[in-house]
Order: sequence, then C-alpha cells, then structure tokens
Amino acid sequence: MLGNTFGEHFRLTTFGESHGTSVGGVIDGCPAGLKIDFAMIDAELARRRGDGVEGTTERKESDQIEWQSGIMDGVTLGTPIAFLVRNGDTRSEDYDSLKEWQRAGHADYTYQKKYGIRDHRGGGRASARETVSRVIAGAIAKQLLANEGISIISETVVADLQSATSDNQTIGGKVRCNIYGVKPGIGEPVFNKLNARLAYAMMAIPSAVSFEMGAGLQATEMTGADYADRWNEVDVADFKSATTDELKQSSNQAITRTNHCGGVQGGISNGMPIEFTVGFHPVVTQIPITQCRNRAGEVQMIEIKGRHDRCHVSRVVVIVEAMAALTLIDFLTPNLSNH
Amino acid sequence: MLGNTFGEHFRLTTFGESHGTSVGGVIDGCPAGLKIDFAMIDAELARRRGDGVEGTTERKESDQIEWQSGIMDGVTLGTPIAFLVRNGDTRSEDYDSLKEWQRAGHADYTYQKKYGIRDHRGGGRASARETVSRVIAGAIAKQLLANEGISIISETVVADLQSATSDNQTIGGKVRCNIYGVKPGIGEPVFNKLNARLAYAMMAIPSAVSFEMGAGLQATEMTGADYADRWNEVDVADFKSATTDELKQSSNQAITRTNHCGGVQGGISNGMPIEFTVGFHPVVTQIPITQCRNRAGEVQMIEIKGRHDRCHVSRVVVIVEAMAALTLIDFLTPNLSNH
Amino acid sequence: MLGNTFGEHFRLTTFGESHGTSVGGVIDGCPAGLKIDFAMIDAELARRRGDGVEGTTERKESDQIEWQSGIMDGVTLGTPIAFLVRNGDTRSEDYDSLKEWQRAGHADYTYQKKYGIRDHRGGGRASARETVSRVIAGAIAKQLLANEGISIISETVVADLQSATSDNQTIGGKVRCNIYGVKPGIGEPVFNKLNARLAYAMMAIPSAVSFEMGAGLQATEMTGADYADRWNEVDVADFKSATTDELKQSSNQAITRTNHCGGVQGGISNGMPIEFTVGFHPVVTQIPITQCRNRAGEVQMIEIKGRHDRCHVSRVVVIVEAMAALTLIDFLTPNLSNH
Amino acid sequence: MLGNTFGEHFRLTTFGESHGTSVGGVIDGCPAGLKIDFAMIDAELARRRGDGVEGTTERKESDQIEWQSGIMDGVTLGTPIAFLVRNGDTRSEDYDSLKEWQRAGHADYTYQKKYGIRDHRGGGRASARETVSRVIAGAIAKQLLANEGISIISETVVADLQSATSDNQTIGGKVRCNIYGVKPGIGEPVFNKLNARLAYAMMAIPSAVSFEMGAGLQATEMTGADYADRWNEVDVADFKSATTDELKQSSNQAITRTNHCGGVQGGISNGMPIEFTVGFHPVVTQIPITQCRNRAGEVQMIEIKGRHDRCHVSRVVVIVEAMAALTLIDFLTPNLSNH
Repeated sequence: MLGNTFGEHFRLTTFGESHGTSVGGVIDGCPAGLKIDFAMIDAELARRRGDGVEGTTERKESDQIEWQSGIMDGVTLGTPIAFLVRNGDTRSEDYDSLKEWQRAGHADYTYQKKYGIRDHRGGGRASARETVSRVIAGAIAKQLLANEGISIISETVVADLQSATSDNQTIGGKVRCNIYGVKPGIGEPVFNKLNARLAYAMMAIPSAVSFEMGAGLQATEMTGADYADRWNEVDVADFKSATTDELKQSSNQAITRTNHCGGVQGGISNGMPIEFTVGFHPVVTQIPITQCRNRAGEVQMIEIKGRHDRCHVSRVVVIVEAMAALTLIDFLTPNLSNH
Repeated sequence: MLGNTFGEHFRLTTFGESHGTSVGGVIDGCPAGLKIDFAMIDAELARRRGDGVEGTTERKESDQIEWQSGIMDGVTLGTPIAFLVRNGDTRSEDYDSLKEWQRAGHADYTYQKKYGIRDHRGGGRASARETVSRVIAGAIAKQLLANEGISIISETVVADLQSATSDNQTIGGKVRCNIYGVKPGIGEPVFNKLNARLAYAMMAIPSAVSFEMGAGLQATEMTGADYADRWNEVDVADFKSATTDELKQSSNQAITRTNHCGGVQGGISNGMPIEFTVGFHPVVTQIPITQCRNRAGEVQMIEIKGRHDRCHVSRVVVIVEAMAALTLIDFLTPNLSNH
Repeated sequence: MLGNTFGEHFRLTTFGESHGTSVGGVIDGCPAGLKIDFAMIDAELARRRGDGVEGTTERKESDQIEWQSGIMDGVTLGTPIAFLVRNGDTRSEDYDSLKEWQRAGHADYTYQKKYGIRDHRGGGRASARETVSRVIAGAIAKQLLANEGISIISETVVADLQSATSDNQTIGGKVRCNIYGVKPGIGEPVFNKLNARLAYAMMAIPSAVSFEMGAGLQATEMTGADYADRWNEVDVADFKSATTDELKQSSNQAITRTNHCGGVQGGISNGMPIEFTVGFHPVVTQIPITQCRNRAGEVQMIEIKGRHDRCHVSRVVVIVEAMAALTLIDFLTPNLSNH
Repeated sequence: MLGNTFGEHFRLTTFGESHGTSVGGVIDGCPAGLKIDFAMIDAELARRRGDGVEGTTERKESDQIEWQSGIMDGVTLGTPIAFLVRNGDTRSEDYDSLKEWQRAGHADYTYQKKYGIRDHRGGGRASARETVSRVIAGAIAKQLLANEGISIISETVVADLQSATSDNQTIGGKVRCNIYGVKPGIGEPVFNKLNARLAYAMMAIPSAVSFEMGAGLQATEMTGADYADRWNEVDVADFKSATTDELKQSSNQAITRTNHCGGVQGGISNGMPIEFTVGFHPVVTQIPITQCRNRAGEVQMIEIKGRHDRCHVSRVVVIVEAMAALTLIDFLTPNLSNH
C-alpha cells in the first residue's frame, strides 16, 4: 500500500520534503470546466500559515503556487492539475545536528527504520510543510463543492492558548467541523462508510489523536432511547440554494429532531449536517533542547534550532476542512458533469 | 468508490443480506501454505455470537462455514478463499411492518435514498449480521499474524452493563485494543498512516462513534513536554519469541518510556505496542415500539418484533480485533513468503 | 497486485478451482433496480459450454447458479451480488497422475513455482472452468449495457475446424468483436485508454495470444494517408434506439468514412463501432499422452485422462463478449443512475 | 476510473500538456536507497527524441529534468519522486487554426466530446510529448530491474523507412521486445496475468494497434502439438549473473525447448525470456494539409504548421521498453528491500 495518494475519483498525490526543492501535488479527476478562484486558494494558504496568529511558527514562506498543467485560461481541462510551491525560507543548517540524532516523539526513528535513510532537514517528508499541497487541493475541492451547495465550516475548541504561549509550553486542542448541504445518499455501506472515510482522512493529519462522529464519546454514555435521532414530520430541505445562515437556522426543516449521529446512518448521509470533532496532541518538539537518540541507542539532550508552533491547532483548522473537502468530493465526483 | 472491499494486499470482499441466502466473503491475497486452524475460527464466531453472555440477541445461528475455494486438505493455495454462512434462523415475517416504514436511528432511510430500493428484512445489508464475514477473515488474518509474532488483545471498558439490562434500556461503551509484536517500520507516511488505516477500519464497524489513538483525548489536554514519549536507553526487544506476559512486562525493554502515541509516529510503527480505543453508541432499536417514518414523511410508532442486544459491546470486541488484524495483515502481506 | 478482481466501478471478483466445491464470483457496484433476466444468463452459459457444438469438451456441467445475495424478488439491490456454481461432474481421480507431474505448455509449473503448492485436479484455478464466473457477470453487464443502447456481437474467424477435429489435432483461431452504440467520450486518456483496457481484458482470457484494435496489424503496413479515418460531413447518429441491423447499416451516418482506428481515438470512443480481434492458441493438452516434468526436472510422457476441446474458439466467443461487457460497464457505471 | 496513473506498487502519475508549462510525473513506491544514474536517464530521453535519426520530428527539446523531491544526494529516499521537464520549444501559434477545427484521425474530437474543452495546442494532453514522463520513470524502473538481473532489449521490425521518408508519406511498423532474467513466478492469475498487464501497458502507448504474445498470430494457425512448448530435461538457469550474450545463447539451458508462449504460462512467468511484439499505425497528421471538422460538423482542409515524424517507430522503442519496465517493476516492487 502506498502512502502519498488520497482518493479514488478525485485523487490527490502529494510530494516533497520540507527542505527539498518544492512541495506540491497532482490532482487527477478534477472535472473539466471549473473556473478556478486563485485568490481563494491563496487565502486558504494564508490560513494555514497562520498569518497574524500569535504563537505560530516563525518560518514564513510566501507559498507562491507554480501551476504546471491541467488549467488553460484559468479553467480546468479535465487533465491532471500539477502544482508546486518552492521551499524558499529553509535554514537546513539548523538541522545538521539531527543527521545522527532522532528526536523523541518525532518520526525520525520510524522513517529511519522503514527506509534505512531519511531526510533529516526540517522533518523531511514527515514535516507538516507537506500539508501545503492538501490545502491547495482542498481549496479546489471546496470550489467544486460550493457549486453543489456544500459548505464546510470548522473552528477550534481550545481551552487556553494564551497561558500556554506565555510559558513556552506547547499545547494541543480540538477542531469541530460542520458540513452543510450534503444530500442524503452519500457514502458507501460496510467499509467505505462516509464516517469511516472521514476518520481516515482526519487521522492522516499530522498530530491527530482522536476522531468523534456526531455526539462521539458522549454517545457511549447515553441510553439507546436518548441517543436515537427521532424523525421530524417534515421532509429535508433542499440545501443547495440556502445561505450558511439559512442552513444553520433550518433545524426546524431537518429530517431528524436531533443529530447525535452527525448526519450519517449506516455509513450514508441522511441530509442532516455532517458533524465531527478531531483532537490534536501538542507539538512535541521541546525548545531549545530536545531529548534525542542515535542509531546505537545512545540518548542525549540536543539543542534544536528549528522553528515550531507553540499552538498549531488554529492552523490545523484549514487542513481539517481541506481533508473533509477531499473526502466529500471523492464521493461526489462520479456524479458531477465534466462541463 | 465501492463499499464492500477492505484492504489492498490481503483483500476481503463481503456479501450478503441479513435475511438473504447467506452472508460470506472472498479473501484475495492470503499467502499459500497456511494450515488453517478451523476450530479457532469457530471459537471467534462464538465470541461474536456472545455465546453465554447475558443481554445479547436471542437470534442464534449455528454459523456453519461452507468453504468454497482456496483451501485444499486444510492448507491455503494462494488462490481466493471464498466462504459463506447460511442465514438459517431468520424470521423475516417479523419485519413485514418495515416494508413501508423506516426506523428512527437506523439506515433504513439512507439506503432507500441511496439505492431507491432496500431489503427491509432484519436490516438487510446494514445488519451487523454482515460482520460474520469480517470475523472469519479476521481469524485467518490473526493466524498469519501469530506466525509473525503479533497478537491482538482487546477488552471492553463499559460502566454498568447490569443496570442497563435490568430496565430494558440499551447502552454502548468502549473497547480498548492492544497489539503486541509489531516491529518498527509498519505503516505508510502521509495518507496511509497506520493510525489512519486503523481509524478507518474501526469507524467502519457498525455503531462506532469514536476513535482514540494512544492517549487519545487526554493528549489534547497535555503540554508537549508531558506528551512527548522519551527514549529509553536500551534498544527495542525482538517481540517475536516472547509470550504475551513477557510482552506486557517488557516495558523496561521498551524503546520509549511512555507510549502516549500508541506505538505509531509519523504514521509508522515504532515497535511499542499499538494502542487505541473505540467507542460505540447503544443499539438504537427501541423495543417493543420504535418511531418510524414512511416515504411520504409521515411519522408513526410501530411495533418491532425483531431481536436485538441490550448491550452489544462485548460482542463487538472480536470485531474490533478482526478489523485490526485485517488492517495489519494488509500492510504485512507483501513481505510474507508465499510458502 | 492481486489477480482475481476485474474493474473499479463494476467490480467482479472470482473464486474457485476446477475440482473444488464451486466456482463463483462477487459483483460489487452493480446499480440497484435492474430486473435480472435469468434465462438470458443461462443461455450465455450454454454458449460457453458449447452445447451442440462439435469438438468441444465432454465434461458437461449443468451450471446451476446459486444466487447468494444482492437480489430480492429478481431485482438488484445495489449491494454485492454473490453467486456460485457447484462443480458437479468432476473426475478428480483422472488427474491423480498429475500430482507429481507438470504438463508441458500448461500453468502447472508456474503455479507450483509461484505458490509452492497447487491444486493439480483439472487445472485447479488455472482451468478455463473459472470463466463460468466471467460469463455470468458479463451477462449482467450486457443487460445493463442493453439498457444504454449498447450491443456486443462477436464471431469466430477460424479456418478449418472440421479438418482439425478429424485427425485428433487441436487448433486455435480468432474472434472478431464489434460493439455498437457506444457514445463518444468513453475511455480515459494516457493509461486507461479504452483500447488499452480492452487489450488487458482480452489477454486475460485463457489461451489469448494477440489483440488487434481496428485495422490492427494491417495498420502497421499502411501509409498515414491511407490509415487516417476521414470525417463524414454528417453528425454521428444517436445509436440508442436503433436495431442491430440499423446500426450495421448506419455507416452513411457515421462520423468517419472509415473505421481503421476501431472507434477509439486518443483512448476515447468517437461514436463509431468499437472493433477488435483476439487470437487464441490451440489447446495444448496432447491426448492421450502429454509430455510432463516433475520437480526434479525429470521429463516423461504421461497418459492424461481429462477431457479437452479439440477447438475451443467457438466457446471463447461468449467469453470475449463477457470481458468486453465488463470493460465497458466499468467505464459507464459511474454515470448510471442507481434506480 | 482515472487515466493518468500506471501501476499499483511502483506507481507513476503523469501530468502535462504539450504546450503547457511542463510535462512531468510523480513516482510513488520507488524503494529507498537506489543510487540514481542520471546520465542513463538522459540517454533514454535522447533515444526518445530520436537524436540523429532521420525522419523524426524537428521539434527539439533539451529535456532538462528538474527533480523536485524524493532524492537526496543522488539517492532515493522512499518518498515520492517528482520531476518535470519544461516545454521550451513550443510554437503554440502554429496551432491557432486548430482552436475551432478537429483534425481527422486525431483525438481532437474525442477530447472535446469527453471534456467539453480541450487544449488545442500541439495535441494538448494527447500529444506524445507526454511520453517523456514515461521514459524517465521507465529508466528508473530499468535501473531497479538491472539490480535484479533483468534486462529489456527491443528493436524495430520495419520494412522500408527510407522509401517512406523520401515521398513525404508516414509509415508505421512493429517493435519486438525481449526481457531476459525474469524468474519463474512473476504475474498474477486470472485477470492480472503478466501478459495481460503487458498488453494493457503497450496498448496505452500512442498509436499502438496490436499486441502479440510470444508466437502471437502465428500461434492461431498452429496445431496444439506444434504450439506446446516441450520441457527440456535441464533446469532453468539462474539468469542473474549472465551477460546478455550469454542469455541469448542459453537456450540449451532453457526450461522449455521452444518459447511459443513468450515466457508466460497461466499468466505467470516460467523463467524463459518474455517475448512480445507491438504494432503501431503511422502518424496520421497529413502535412501540409489535413482534413478537419468543426463542432457544427463542417469539414474543411486546413493547413497545419506543427512538426511531425515521418516514421516514429524508432522513437517508440524506448517507450515500449519503459512501459515494459514499469509493468515488471510493479509486480516486483513488493519483494524488493527498501535499502
């Protein structure tokens, strides 16, 4: 099984190490005829960079996208869309000390064990820098979804970022994601349930540690009588033409009175908002000194000069949305017209 | 995307409706030369039936497996292993009332919306009866894993089953799963992380609502300094020849002092035990009367005669293990010899 | 890469050894709501058996299909369709001599090398008996294609069957296949060209040795000026409502004046009939005595008691059509409605 | 089904239009630790350009590869290898006349029908320019195969290139390919037969019209007694350490006396050389004037200023080898060590 491709119908393959020439991706399966909103993609990248957010990493890429193929005069051709973003602001020498040393809590050791070789600079392929490609592809997916009346809205649920940032500690947190406008019937039974694919997508985000569908862990403590989402007596609204506010206020139009299941029953959407929560562990790098291990098993404290977030969860929000968009568009693409 | 196949290298395709002729599956990719332990498979099926467990469903299938192919003289041939289990003890007439009515909290509505048709008898394809096939395939996967020194041990973490069963309420709960003996280097970076594939597999179990890797939700509230799993100064033990007790006691041999990450870093195993927790919502069927909806949107209380568990979580344990086994063997199969 | 599954969207997985319990298959992805014509499937199986054709194998199965799932009241549910056909008329003892001996020209040696074990009875998994499953699935595919106005018509192009059968020799031959009613736009560029997928499907038929698209080998000897299919000045007809005769006579309606390309340009259908030819080598079993080899490399002439065709090409016609149908429906399924 | 990815274990995804920014690809699954021979890759690209060959296209790219990822200090990391080659020498204005006109015999019409939009410049995605990416990936595959003792040697079988080139006609031809050193047991039964995968790969080359395995069409006219490859009494040689000359002369070491089957039985290699022949139709572009059609169905003769080969078959040889290498390495990769 290969690791760098996501999706079957709208298929993103990403590439790139943190301090290599570039990071980028190829999208196969994007329908032809989409007029790309490039400014929206740049805005999504700015959300990922955390522009203006306190406590985020000091490394500042300009994230200039170099489009290679699949787009002519701003419109998709139906052929593969390849793009790359150069790794400009690297300070690879910061990582020289890591050539021989594997940081505690990182993927340094596992990559070395798996491949017998690793790019030690800035985390290499395991760096969250790779998520640039997901955000770009996710932004295109969002544009396609918007045309189908689907919107994805996420936000952090994090206790106290300020206290964490003040004492040089890192902290994690949770992201709640709501997807509006998904019609009934999306998702596949048994193994490729919509909730199972979402869990897969979310746990593939660096530092993700938990996934909860709908009521999540609370559901494990409810009785069946309390948990079961009872029917309303009115039919589900056609969400396509509604605004987001209208969508949020349409609960009296909803097919069920509660939404403990998070909009998915038997792996298939029921027309209610898709709701889930993803938890993230804190950044594990200890600055300025991290415990490290070499291949002989010796352990030592090493000074790390790289730059890292104190709380990265606010930056993760757009990645959660991107992965949600990629998951949904993968189910929907076969039914989209090519032009 | 199709829903009924799990895995790429060790690939299970399941079929069957709850009240159809049979449920069963085809395994493609099982290495040749495995001498099947049929008694162990039967014992796993007995765990799934909950033989002797209070509060489980009254429907009792004998679960006689009819092997069709891929095995000669009890040894696998490397060709597809097809099997089926007939649906003997069905009382399809119990479900006649559901032809026109869709139960609250079930997949009746979503299947109808997706396919325009559904088998209303006993949940049809959405019934947990389908997991028979997963348990059979998972048992074969466990036998292969055992030959590689890997064992999977799960248990329920459920508050108070007895109180629930006494007052005719249904309850859910959690299952904790530990996998011993996985060497470093298993899992693929970026999208097919071992933890992401596990999350996908677990959320594909009926009634699953949450997945936590390692410390899970607790990790979202820890500081990075507390969360980071620090190195031990001794190398990881070769788990292959150890007994389960030895494995559990080998923490002083472990490569890290704690295991908050649950044995996976950067999506790749680090040689520590793989640990995760799965939460399940309670059975939603309200006995004897469940709220239902017809295609016109009318809502009514209907008497349901089918049989259902008051707490199904103890039966789910073996399914959690089966899906974990299928996930792991899918990563390992390319490296197994065919004979 | 696993061998026993064909297709991505309409996906057939087959199982079964020639002298095992049964041969059969699972179809995932068949749209819901198809009313199955069971008599037509039986008729296709009769074509495969060569009922009434001189020179075909004497083994006569009744080929009773036992449907397991995915169909209720004769209508597809959208869930996996599993079926099996028992291997009734086996004379496994005929093959006892082959336990230790590998026949020249067969797959006995290669299976043994690949798996370290093989089912020696009647060719095991390598037997053409396996194509029963393809014919059943192909018949369902044909029924779906017929609803889209697509028909597949094949015939043998074989020099002199009678002379071959009279002197106990086996001979091969060619099958020409024409597919009418495929609209422009079917097929994927670059690797999954419609012609490439057809070549793959055809060469996966036992004893296939050649594949020619359109003019085939003749095209390699033409000049570009002669080969290029020039435009007609009228637009392509909508083939959906036409009869087969009308389709054949509609050349004056065709979009091109000639059809050297066989209806595919750049890997994508152009609305002309899809035309290709498949060649088959003769049955290699020498009756009554075949040269064999054991694992030590010793060679000996062994008497084989199994039954084999003198010319199998007339029986292959329906398999060519089945594989063509499976190839086409795989491209078309995403665009078919589920009900 | 998506079109732009080839392979499951060693997986190439290509991108790029002929006159877009670049053509390129991403390889996922290349084992770590391969020291890349960059000069050999350049030499393969020179073969594709037909440097020094009379009658080939006048467009001369320098084909400078810009490596993006997956390689550090010339050694593969096991992570995706992304590369691109800029489209320098484009004269897009040559193709302005084709914006509204679709050339006879080309993919202009089918792309327009499929996508509702097309890049009309130089054939866009359908241009043979795309094969640059296949040759680069194929060269890496060859380097891996060479380490396993496998070599691929092809040559044209073309009647009279000179006569064709003298009178401004285009001609096609055939390429014969021989693969030495493949051990027994490679290939999968039933659908993913080695010969079926090779047919798929070859027919996915632009202008391919026929595929013959081993004796090919001749086999359709032989008797079974003549066709069957009889055993030699000596065991198959270990080809790994032999030179190509030794390989060719090792027929007395071969496991069979003849090789009509082309080294594959039951879809699985038998240790004999893999042999097949691919036919190609002539370049269809008529210079200087080609018949064209617009979307209204009007037909007209249009002057085409683009540059095209008179005989492209000699340039195709390296593409045949590349696709053969990609096919083989896809089967072998799971068994290769990562370092």
